[in-house]
Amino acid sequence: MNSATGRGLPRMTELRVHNLSVSLDGYVAGPGQTMEEPLGVGGERLHEWIFSPDATEVDRRFRDLGEQDVGATIMGRNMFGPVRGPWGDEEWTGWWGADPPFHHDVFVLTHHARDPVPMAGGTTFHVVTDGIEAALDRARAAAGDRHVRLGGGASTVQQYLRAGLLDELHLAVVPVLLGDGERLFEGLGSAVDDWTCVEFAPSRSVSHVRLRR
Amino acid sequence: MNSATGRGLPRMTELRVHNLSVSLDGYVAGPGQTMEEPLGVGGERLHEWIFSPDATEVDRRFRDLGEQDVGATIMGRNMFGPVRGPWGDEEWTGWWGADPPFHHDVFVLTHHARDPVPMAGGTTFHVVTDGIEAALDRARAAAGDRHVRLGGGASTVQQYLRAGLLDELHLAVVPVLLGDGERLFEGLGSAVDDWTCVEFAPSRSVSHVRLRR
Repeated sequence: MNSATGRGLPRMTELRVHNLSVSLDGYVAGPGQTMEEPLGVGGERLHEWIFSPDATEVDRRFRDLGEQDVGATIMGRNMFGPVRGPWGDEEWTGWWGADPPFHHDVFVLTHHARDPVPMAGGTTFHVVTDGIEAALDRARAAAGDRHVRLGGGASTVQQYLRAGLLDELHLAVVPVLLGDGERLFEGLGSAVDDWTCVEFAPSRSVSHVRLRR
Repeated sequence: MNSATGRGLPRMTELRVHNLSVSLDGYVAGPGQTMEEPLGVGGERLHEWIFSPDATEVDRRFRDLGEQDVGATIMGRNMFGPVRGPWGDEEWTGWWGADPPFHHDVFVLTHHARDPVPMAGGTTFHVVTDGIEAALDRARAAAGDRHVRLGGGASTVQQYLRAGLLDELHLAVVPVLLGDGERLFEGLGSAVDDWTCVEFAPSRSVSHVRLRR
């Protein structure tokens, strides 16, 4: 694949958040995240729209956009799994089973080193211990001329936003109240000054908002 | 006016928030509220939809709902004006000029007593110094069988939510980021447990969400 802009220049690989579901009160996960409830109490309500039989064309379009032209993924350790501290017996290989739905290199931000974890279907989990910029460099190299998708959780997105490294943020605002949990927009202040809504596309169940710098 | 339910019982007067505009990052006003910028820096972007020539039928329906069948209004002191502490020369009579758009009794929550302020067009501002329940009692008495509208700001809405006194909350979620300001959903926790979305009606520019206990 070799995309180009209208001027014939190679397109810059972007770092994008896709399909990040956020409650009306600003939470991307409920309180009390555990092995049994990885999205916290009530957090699964944030993701019902993705799998709903009521999903509309606009929902499906955004869902698919999150897969198209993506060559690598970065995520925080909490999104990868519930293990904290050292990896121990290294049995944990993510929430997604033997054949995770990425099919490319996935870079997991952590403070604890571990060998790459190759999975079926082309997914390999790489832990990155030297920070968000190093993870982005490695993900860009792995993605080639495709984009890098940034997963959660909130603190991972906040770090890339504050560092000015994020290009696009697609939110699905879900009309529920969680009351407590992991908040996306916390202490960002001027880091969002240059961000503006480039697309507002509500569906039957959520409001899709695409923001860019 | 004398409304009744299907069972012939007199309808309970409700306390409702209408047309409360909130940013994607959860603010109902920007930072740095002053005399010149009563909605804080950038806060006026929250209210553009109300006056926009692009307003759609659903926007107009919600805007009108905020006026229909409302017999009294309660608001916090910050919504009434920028004066803090004692009223001083009592020259301040609200942001709305000689003929405010309420045309009924308005109850202003404050710690500083002041005589009622009658205005043209049927609006009278009453300061209430003995708390939110007293203000609601007085507003209900003034409203008769009509509803009581609860204005802002955020802390006023939070107080009535926490006390379990609010019946309905209509938000207009505006696809902008303010970065900082006055947050609506802060420290509410279980106070929103029983709240659920009863209507999700996005327009071209905002998402209208009607929540009820």
